[in-house]
Amino acid sequence: MRKFLKVTLASALIGCGVIGTVSSLMVKEVKAVEIITHWVPHEVYGMPGEPDNSGKVFFSGLKAKYMGYPKDAQRSPYPGKYSKFWKTLPAYRYYIPDYMYNRDEVRPSNPIKGTFKLEQCVACHSVMTPGIVRDYNKSAHSKAEPAPTGCDTCHGNNHQKLTMPSSKACGTAECHETQYNEQGQGGIGSHASCSSFAQVECAWSIERPPGDTAGCTFCHTSPEERCSTCHQRHQFDPAVARRSEQCKTCHWGKDHRDWEAYDIGLHGTVYQVNKWDTEQFDFSKKLSDADYVGPTCQYCHMRGGHHNVQRASIVYTSMGMSMADRGAPLWKEKRDRWVSICDDCHSPRFARENLQAMDESVKDASLKYRETFKVAEDLLIDGVLDPMPKDLCPDWSGQHIWSLKIGAYHDGEAYGGKTGESGEFRMSNVTDVERLCFESVGYFQTYIYKGMAHGSWNDATYSDGSFGMDRWLVNVKQNASRARRLAALEKKVGISWQPEQFWKTGEWLDQLTGPYIVKNHPGKTIFDLCPDPGWLDTHHAPAEEVEYIERKLKELGITAGSHSAHHHESGHDPAARSMKEH
Amino acid sequence: MRKFLKVTLASALIGCGVIGTVSSLMVKEVKAVEIITHWVPHEVYGMPGEPDNSGKVFFSGLKAKYMGYPKDAQRSPYPGKYSKFWKTLPAYRYYIPDYMYNRDEVRPSNPIKGTFKLEQCVACHSVMTPGIVRDYNKSAHSKAEPAPTGCDTCHGNNHQKLTMPSSKACGTAECHETQYNEQGQGGIGSHASCSSFAQVECAWSIERPPGDTAGCTFCHTSPEERCSTCHQRHQFDPAVARRSEQCKTCHWGKDHRDWEAYDIGLHGTVYQVNKWDTEQFDFSKKLSDADYVGPTCQYCHMRGGHHNVQRASIVYTSMGMSMADRGAPLWKEKRDRWVSICDDCHSPRFARENLQAMDESVKDASLKYRETFKVAEDLLIDGVLDPMPKDLCPDWSGQHIWSLKIGAYHDGEAYGGKTGESGEFRMSNVTDVERLCFESVGYFQTYIYKGMAHGSWNDATYSDGSFGMDRWLVNVKQNASRARRLAALEKKVGISWQPEQFWKTGEWLDQLTGPYIVKNHPGKTIFDLCPDPGWLDTHHAPAEEVEYIERKLKELGITAGSHSAHHHESGHDPAARSMKEH
Amino acid sequence: MRKFLKVTLASALIGCGVIGTVSSLMVKEVKAVEIITHWVPHEVYGMPGEPDNSGKVFFSGLKAKYMGYPKDAQRSPYPGKYSKFWKTLPAYRYYIPDYMYNRDEVRPSNPIKGTFKLEQCVACHSVMTPGIVRDYNKSAHSKAEPAPTGCDTCHGNNHQKLTMPSSKACGTAECHETQYNEQGQGGIGSHASCSSFAQVECAWSIERPPGDTAGCTFCHTSPEERCSTCHQRHQFDPAVARRSEQCKTCHWGKDHRDWEAYDIGLHGTVYQVNKWDTEQFDFSKKLSDADYVGPTCQYCHMRGGHHNVQRASIVYTSMGMSMADRGAPLWKEKRDRWVSICDDCHSPRFARENLQAMDESVKDASLKYRETFKVAEDLLIDGVLDPMPKDLCPDWSGQHIWSLKIGAYHDGEAYGGKTGESGEFRMSNVTDVERLCFESVGYFQTYIYKGMAHGSWNDATYSDGSFGMDRWLVNVKQNASRARRLAALEKKVGISWQPEQFWKTGEWLDQLTGPYIVKNHPGKTIFDLCPDPGWLDTHHAPAEEVEYIERKLKELGITAGSHSAHHHESGHDPAARSMKEH
Repeated sequence: MRKFLKVTLASALIGCGVIGTVSSLMVKEVKAVEIITHWVPHEVYGMPGEPDNSGKVFFSGLKAKYMGYPKDAQRSPYPGKYSKFWKTLPAYRYYIPDYMYNRDEVRPSNPIKGTFKLEQCVACHSVMTPGIVRDYNKSAHSKAEPAPTGCDTCHGNNHQKLTMPSSKACGTAECHETQYNEQGQGGIGSHASCSSFAQVECAWSIERPPGDTAGCTFCHTSPEERCSTCHQRHQFDPAVARRSEQCKTCHWGKDHRDWEAYDIGLHGTVYQVNKWDTEQFDFSKKLSDADYVGPTCQYCHMRGGHHNVQRASIVYTSMGMSMADRGAPLWKEKRDRWVSICDDCHSPRFARENLQAMDESVKDASLKYRETFKVAEDLLIDGVLDPMPKDLCPDWSGQHIWSLKIGAYHDGEAYGGKTGESGEFRMSNVTDVERLCFESVGYFQTYIYKGMAHGSWNDATYSDGSFGMDRWLVNVKQNASRARRLAALEKKVGISWQPEQFWKTGEWLDQLTGPYIVKNHPGKTIFDLCPDPGWLDTHHAPAEEVEYIERKLKELGITAGSHSAHHHESGHDPAARSMKEH
Repeated sequence: MRKFLKVTLASALIGCGVIGTVSSLMVKEVKAVEIITHWVPHEVYGMPGEPDNSGKVFFSGLKAKYMGYPKDAQRSPYPGKYSKFWKTLPAYRYYIPDYMYNRDEVRPSNPIKGTFKLEQCVACHSVMTPGIVRDYNKSAHSKAEPAPTGCDTCHGNNHQKLTMPSSKACGTAECHETQYNEQGQGGIGSHASCSSFAQVECAWSIERPPGDTAGCTFCHTSPEERCSTCHQRHQFDPAVARRSEQCKTCHWGKDHRDWEAYDIGLHGTVYQVNKWDTEQFDFSKKLSDADYVGPTCQYCHMRGGHHNVQRASIVYTSMGMSMADRGAPLWKEKRDRWVSICDDCHSPRFARENLQAMDESVKDASLKYRETFKVAEDLLIDGVLDPMPKDLCPDWSGQHIWSLKIGAYHDGEAYGGKTGESGEFRMSNVTDVERLCFESVGYFQTYIYKGMAHGSWNDATYSDGSFGMDRWLVNVKQNASRARRLAALEKKVGISWQPEQFWKTGEWLDQLTGPYIVKNHPGKTIFDLCPDPGWLDTHHAPAEEVEYIERKLKELGITAGSHSAHHHESGHDPAARSMKEH
Repeated sequence: MRKFLKVTLASALIGCGVIGTVSSLMVKEVKAVEIITHWVPHEVYGMPGEPDNSGKVFFSGLKAKYMGYPKDAQRSPYPGKYSKFWKTLPAYRYYIPDYMYNRDEVRPSNPIKGTFKLEQCVACHSVMTPGIVRDYNKSAHSKAEPAPTGCDTCHGNNHQKLTMPSSKACGTAECHETQYNEQGQGGIGSHASCSSFAQVECAWSIERPPGDTAGCTFCHTSPEERCSTCHQRHQFDPAVARRSEQCKTCHWGKDHRDWEAYDIGLHGTVYQVNKWDTEQFDFSKKLSDADYVGPTCQYCHMRGGHHNVQRASIVYTSMGMSMADRGAPLWKEKRDRWVSICDDCHSPRFARENLQAMDESVKDASLKYRETFKVAEDLLIDGVLDPMPKDLCPDWSGQHIWSLKIGAYHDGEAYGGKTGESGEFRMSNVTDVERLCFESVGYFQTYIYKGMAHGSWNDATYSDGSFGMDRWLVNVKQNASRARRLAALEKKVGISWQPEQFWKTGEWLDQLTGPYIVKNHPGKTIFDLCPDPGWLDTHHAPAEEVEYIERKLKELGITAGSHSAHHHESGHDPAARSMKEH
């Protein structure tokens, strides 16, 4: 719409009809692109993944295995379906306050009796926690008219019944309802669901002692449960929340390499060399009025200040692992929305062609991963994986499903487990080649996607994007070659290799859920022990998103799941593949 | 004490007796924690390392193998006991000035003859080294009253007998004695001993050509030998020294990952988004008056400006590798001191429970490491390590001790060397599984500890904290599995495997101390060649620290060394274990 | 010259003749150095690479295999000799504008017809791309007198024939000719040639689909083809271009680890803690007038503002992989130039001795690499490499040359291919040990060199400099040991191992140039298919540099290529080695 306005105004200004011109120019355009790409000898580069007009080749993720809790504001996602196995630490009360602090059954005791007014709070806490008071005194809350928003507004005034404010507490009709509601519009993979599905539904969190995943918990609860991670307490100054670094604590590192992609890229450089110059970045202005010299995280992803960060992001792509749309009609609207953001400072052609370059990079990465995966898969199918799934410690569910048997992809008995059962990328309790495959696609392919998306070219290619995937391809082949040579030798000399016991048990492995289930509930899985509570759905993206995607898929004649047919095309019935509703 | 004042004042302000309330509330508190941790099914999670009230389970490091030089200000640690094997480069004269510059035997020649006054220095050096003069002119030294602290004050005025100021030179009674004395209070592992024990006593430095460890030397000499690494010459402005980045050059990277932990964490984020706003961070104020919006490195670790950084740090823990105190009485005072720092801006409960989360994470890491280590240890014990210690290049001492036979842990003949002899984590000259073990605990476990301590959650868990340890566990198992399969095959077909010569010798290995000793002093070790100078002690922590810890251990009925009994509990006599006083 | 002025002025000021003093003091100097290095027991440390007065021991790179295009400003390097195999993406038009945008055959279509004046451009683009207009309005261009430098000056005014400005467009006589000409003085390895040789001549770029190397392309075209990567459009403010971060997007990461070396080092720390204080860093001043408190990238490497960054850098050293000059006469002038930069703020002795420490570190790294390489080389020579070159996918040229057979180093039939043929460090399509060798020298040795050069000590040694090389040495030995044990077993039991097909073919590998050539042009190589265009030279450093180096080498009695004689000294005729002029 904004784009439309732009074009209309432009037309008026230069006084000419655009439509006719555009269509006649499009022919020339195609020809120019042909000339430009003349140097791409298609005889060399013609390849399986040609421009993906159906959106199906590199698409997956729609039928994600996370099932989510009922998206109903009246109900907390905690403790979730697997509550029997979900583990906490006392510190979590500050990170999941509505469930672990603000209920009478769990509210921590307090030695100070009485109800207090703002001045009393401040008098005492000026000594007890002076930093908090100092911050509060600088806040807009303390200067609100006609009366300050006092400590009691958020924490209550009964010192033995104090409240730890959750995002819901900030999002009331009197206060920040708009932002709270906007934030809540996000679907699966958004801030609005990251506490629930990554904490109470996630195999990694469920199977381990809490200390081992505390870092996951602290970040993943942040944007769903509280406002104060991004709006630093107790000043809560939006001018500070608008700075890019605010996103860094969570959006950094191997699996969430957004900060690096931005910081090293050209956009980040513009930010870094100008960020304290108020002529270039006036952070006191609202995002909707921002006239920065370059983009911050918030400028693009919270376009105009909207708190559903997912509106300007790429959804359903598993962070670049599963999509290179390359103009697929399925993703056209999302792509157009991005171009209309980029064209604040770039021509739409520049935006589109750079996004196309991103698609190409991700597509090449997918090819590389498919070669990598095949080497691993063949080890499994040929029974020479070192060791086979049955010889590993049982997984989180108490089963022995191959960890790379993900979703609807690699199904059937040959991959371990039954048809329809899904494995889980794993960190430990897995063979080296499985880990290598996970890292290649779960880390390096996302660097490529994010590097290209943010203009961090080096990150996309060299450190460790596409060249990291090259290296891991070598690793997998080297490992597979050795495994096969050993197996051939053992066969020749009549050794029947028994995998080492350390794959199955150990001081650490024995702490996990899987061995516990196998030992204490023989013959059962976690699904038997945690029956469906009746409110599960397989997908809790906003209804209109689900409807849109399913309609588009139908229009395009695509059946979910059929896109994976490139592996072992015969012998499997794609139609028979379905996700177990676990 | 500060904390006590806080509570007293708070009590007075609200006019109620606290003590009775506290004790009655403690019962409720315990109950609330029980409810909170209800979701931790102890049937699953009950584990070997239960809350460590004795402090012994995860404690080690007290009897560190570095022996130190006599902590006597009149004596230089250089050249140290191993002076025969200690190697230098000419550039070191700037880094260890008292020993390598300021003595007549080694003072470098100078072509300029004469004695000069401040104005003359400045006149000439305005041309020769204009940056120095420019800096000096901005310094407090140049503006001192009644007379400036001139070049000659620090460097002398005889141009052929110039001095390169050491920290001792800055710490005179006339100048910065307080800071110098405070800094000197640090014990082992502190700034005050990092030059000596890491340079002249450290196996890694001793065994190699100096170019290979120059980076170690430059950092490790910095805070003991000179003030100007942190107080940038020649302005020496404390306002600049108070900025967090000042700590970065040394406290960064795989083994010293403090900067990353801070910078990526929430505290670092508060710093990064506010650091040039003088309303939020007024660096012109002394640390004792600092009223920052968030913590800098210096604010917490140099609490109130005290120059013994070790006061607010965790000592004797080998950077998280050996301790998860989890409330152990042994560490109560240190823990309380930390809480009283955190509670400037957080409730004490918040502080304690987050530190407890850190403990849990480190405890889980220790379990993971113990599983990792056992896989490696069993290879050694079963004689299938590839290759065995005897087939490797001799270590720094001219011996063939297994590199993971550390301190009092893994002792006895089975581990190579004699009872009481200790190996040394090694970088080269080692098998892959030994390196993997070192990296798992020496790198990744410290990331967990530091990440959790600084609020860098992602670092603690994902990149590469606990998930890095998972990955290395896979690596060690994969390696061990292959080693055992090869050994079984060789046995079956009658091959007597001879380890490759490249493990023992090579262009690089031949430069090291070990082969030199074996070749030139057959039958001797470095200990024979460098006899005890008579002043060695096994520990040079401040006497009161040693006394405190030994008293606590005695009170708790703990004998040093007995904590490692979990491995191969029979067949070894823990009481027989003692550290060789080498 | 500047240095000479300094000394002369200093002499005048102190009124004494310097020359005599210097020569007499040099004797004392030597003696003092002897005393200082007394602690280096030469009996231990005396080693093959003694001070390299001939410059030959660690020198290579002069006869680089990149051949370059004719250094003739009238001719574009594109599409290059291998144009048949060179691949592009449409987005490249913005990165290589003169070749891919500004020619009528390829100029993209545009729907807006007409010729426009500045005010019209601004009126429309205030709506279409408001960020560009906002920036332009802040630029010096918009404020130029007597008339602004308008949009049309750079882009033209015919909206259907718009131009995308290249560096040549900025470098006209009316505008920025000086800077453009200075920049153009750089030789091989400089900004002025990085687009051509890394894009159109580079094996890595040529052999792959463009998405896989898009990051390479975007950085490598930047400083040769455009000014606007460093001079951010559309303000082009030199004050901003003077900030260190401007270099970060390209000079960062595994192979270009300059930013990290600076940022973590002491120089970077001085920058980071002072950079927004205009008293310490006044970026509005020209570089020739800069009086910073510490160095920026630009201050040293663009000394005085000169745009040939190669003047103050180390040329012909392959980023530390091939040189540790240690005072070699060959490199004396370059070394002296560096000292005269350092001595703005440091004594010349300090500068020289720190550079010497860098040399020593690189020398030790070279030794370590030679040990590493030998383990790999012996696998090849003994025919137990897993797999051998003939069993791998053909390389970019359609041949099976061992990837570590680089330049004049490892020649002859034993290394695969014919005498004179050269391999190419490879990422994929290579064995694990080859990758390990590449990483050891191509990554870690450069960290050592750059870390020591920039005062990032930790980076040089610990993370992952010299200790990374240690680790990779272990990796190569472990791998080689396993390969040899497997080969011995197979021999014993009569298995004739056939390398897996996945080394030769796969979904990804099949996209590369090599397999395409083998399939479609059997018996041919890329050199047959792309015959010499007649303008190739083996080296396109500026003529005076080539002349200087060749004269020096002759004076020193060094024949190019003879320096590699340390490997297998007999059996090869070094004189017979020549580079194939491919």
